[in-house]
Amino acid sequence: MSSASSPLAVPHDAPYGVRNLPYGVFSTAGGPAARRVGVAYGDHVLDAGAAARATGAPADVAAALAAPSLNPLLAGGPALWDRTRAALTAWLTEDAHRAAVAPCLLPRADVTLHLPFEVADYVDFYASEHHAANIGRIFRPGSEPLTPNWKHLPIGYHGRAGTIVVSGTPVVRPCGQRKAAADPAPDFGPSRRLDIEAELGFVVGTPSPLGGRVALADADAHVFGVCLVNDWSARDLQSWEYVPLGPFLGKSFATSVSPWVVPLAALADARTAPPVRDTEPLPYLDDRAAHPPYGLDIALEVRLNGHVVARPPFAAMYWTYAQMLAHLTVNGASLRTGDFFASGTISGPERESRGALIELSWNGEQPLELPDGTRRSFLEDGDEVVISATAPGPDGTRIGLGEVSGRIAPARR
Amino acid sequence: MSSASSPLAVPHDAPYGVRNLPYGVFSTAGGPAARRVGVAYGDHVLDAGAAARATGAPADVAAALAAPSLNPLLAGGPALWDRTRAALTAWLTEDAHRAAVAPCLLPRADVTLHLPFEVADYVDFYASEHHAANIGRIFRPGSEPLTPNWKHLPIGYHGRAGTIVVSGTPVVRPCGQRKAAADPAPDFGPSRRLDIEAELGFVVGTPSPLGGRVALADADAHVFGVCLVNDWSARDLQSWEYVPLGPFLGKSFATSVSPWVVPLAALADARTAPPVRDTEPLPYLDDRAAHPPYGLDIALEVRLNGHVVARPPFAAMYWTYAQMLAHLTVNGASLRTGDFFASGTISGPERESRGALIELSWNGEQPLELPDGTRRSFLEDGDEVVISATAPGPDGTRIGLGEVSGRIAPARR
Repeated sequence: MSSASSPLAVPHDAPYGVRNLPYGVFSTAGGPAARRVGVAYGDHVLDAGAAARATGAPADVAAALAAPSLNPLLAGGPALWDRTRAALTAWLTEDAHRAAVAPCLLPRADVTLHLPFEVADYVDFYASEHHAANIGRIFRPGSEPLTPNWKHLPIGYHGRAGTIVVSGTPVVRPCGQRKAAADPAPDFGPSRRLDIEAELGFVVGTPSPLGGRVALADADAHVFGVCLVNDWSARDLQSWEYVPLGPFLGKSFATSVSPWVVPLAALADARTAPPVRDTEPLPYLDDRAAHPPYGLDIALEVRLNGHVVARPPFAAMYWTYAQMLAHLTVNGASLRTGDFFASGTISGPERESRGALIELSWNGEQPLELPDGTRRSFLEDGDEVVISATAPGPDGTRIGLGEVSGRIAPARR
Repeated sequence: MSSASSPLAVPHDAPYGVRNLPYGVFSTAGGPAARRVGVAYGDHVLDAGAAARATGAPADVAAALAAPSLNPLLAGGPALWDRTRAALTAWLTEDAHRAAVAPCLLPRADVTLHLPFEVADYVDFYASEHHAANIGRIFRPGSEPLTPNWKHLPIGYHGRAGTIVVSGTPVVRPCGQRKAAADPAPDFGPSRRLDIEAELGFVVGTPSPLGGRVALADADAHVFGVCLVNDWSARDLQSWEYVPLGPFLGKSFATSVSPWVVPLAALADARTAPPVRDTEPLPYLDDRAAHPPYGLDIALEVRLNGHVVARPPFAAMYWTYAQMLAHLTVNGASLRTGDFFASGTISGPERESRGALIELSWNGEQPLELPDGTRRSFLEDGDEVVISATAPGPDGTRIGLGEVSGRIAPARR
């Protein structure tokens, strides 16, 4: 880790090393209160706008980094993304910049991190075959686990953009209508089946016009980067409301995201072939010729009150982000800068790789036994969930995706 | 109607009279190109920011009216809405303002109307019992027409905010996956079952905090006004994709809205009791003591290629906008200025009061016979749909809601 006397020295294998350079938005209590763009580097945050000024960066790079959110950088498209990343790399590695840049590195403990971008539309997919099949087995025992459409298209739905919150924001237990199958009518009260969904989210930078389509091969011209997502879910509200128009209040009370957006450019070594599919894709979803492939070998870890309860593997996802984006736009829907789409719960084939409590506890039939002697089927007030992840970087290093955390606050009556 | 020589004289019973004063956003080709707030008045549009300057309006009113969208006015809340409406009324009725205001009235034919507000989150409800029951009868013959939850909560889902477009925007026929029940697998191509949904939309002005709730009785402190909505729907895409997470690409390609937002303040005479409900509401949805009631007697008319094909009555809606808003926020979801929620298809009990072609043609079994000798089950390329509406105003007048129109452009292959 870097020390105060040498803020530019970050070990080769640090999760926020020079091959990562994730972007966020921060403010400082002691310094200027304004929100500004930061880049995680070792234990520090680079005040990127200040570094741009100190190094005499080109005007477009400096303007994007001087903004109070990532949106201007996102809107700049791949050419600006590449030039900005090259500039950051130079500032943090070249002796010529050391004196100018050193004062722009702030200890991470001294900054407050904010939602890194203004969310336009939020879409949540359902791209894990293991998750979808588990849910099918739990709720429709005896039928086919997957619905007939599942392997033909990445199922998705729009979520509430306005309740996306940054990691660390308390999550108030939602109230709503609850009705078990045996109840004659619903009652009203706090959710009794509050759950998590460990997901990966994709941040759209480059917009696209209404009536057009983004081809699968153009995904990387539109997607800037990734962050971690906890799509909190009230299963009792959801199960009563969701037929026929899908999840609504069971999801819309809060969706937490990690503060650092890792650029796709930092994930080149994580590219991996998606699982073999057993259904012929329609041409607009056919990624079999993609080089590099669009699968991502990202390893997640879910901790509940400090205990690891799951290790979901993103590499096991059936549908890739490129397929999700191609599908989202194939009907002519436009993209805006700040659009955000998430993968849906990431679950692998093993029990310990499942990314939601409803799967881990098999709908409450097999509660989790935590090492501290407590048991959980769903979340209790005061519980804290932390989802973290890493990906392979160059030369055996790891790229850190940081974490998304949230603690459950009691319902407001 | 007003004449060029006397722009302030508008007949008492004109749809855009002084008791209406709907807000929009316009630009002029000849004058300044910038978008600015306008108010419909007779055959004219009042350049509201210019009028504020010319009359020496209070600073907050002038600032809201000088904006390029309605969002600053919306964010101002009921006190600003009331003061702005009072100022507009004075400008258009008092002799003292005549000379200052007259130059600010532009012939409506000379302006271009734009999307009137920046949409934050978009939610679509399903609040017509007649519509929901018709859809149930069409798709689930032999079962109960309504799902068990329908009379306990206003079912809703999030739609795509980024593809909300202003009236007159061409609607490109969407492509997507189509699969009839008998087909072994989906194919890809233009929707063959492109439909309309005639709806009323509600524009949220005042935000609310995350974790809070908007009580039914506080709805009018948050909802600014209404516009007309055509929620274009590709039924073939929708029916294949929507289980289990709801509509997605079947709706997200375009949603058209009317350019004029009619303030709730103009609809006082339209307040009417909603239909008698046969299911006891949970307390947060109980509007039985509301005075005035939250039902709205708004009469819609749907024209297809110039022929009236339906007259949907908003007064027949089971759920009111106050119930929709109370439900939307009961789980603690926050509101943002610019949030927009629509009623879902408005259908009454008679065939000619149904607000969607799938109901009017009974899923294509009973095509509409138009007076020009053509028949329609769903929309063909080149078809134009115009939805208009009026509501009762004071003293036997009518409040015009204007219209939302759209023409179908051929699919892009």
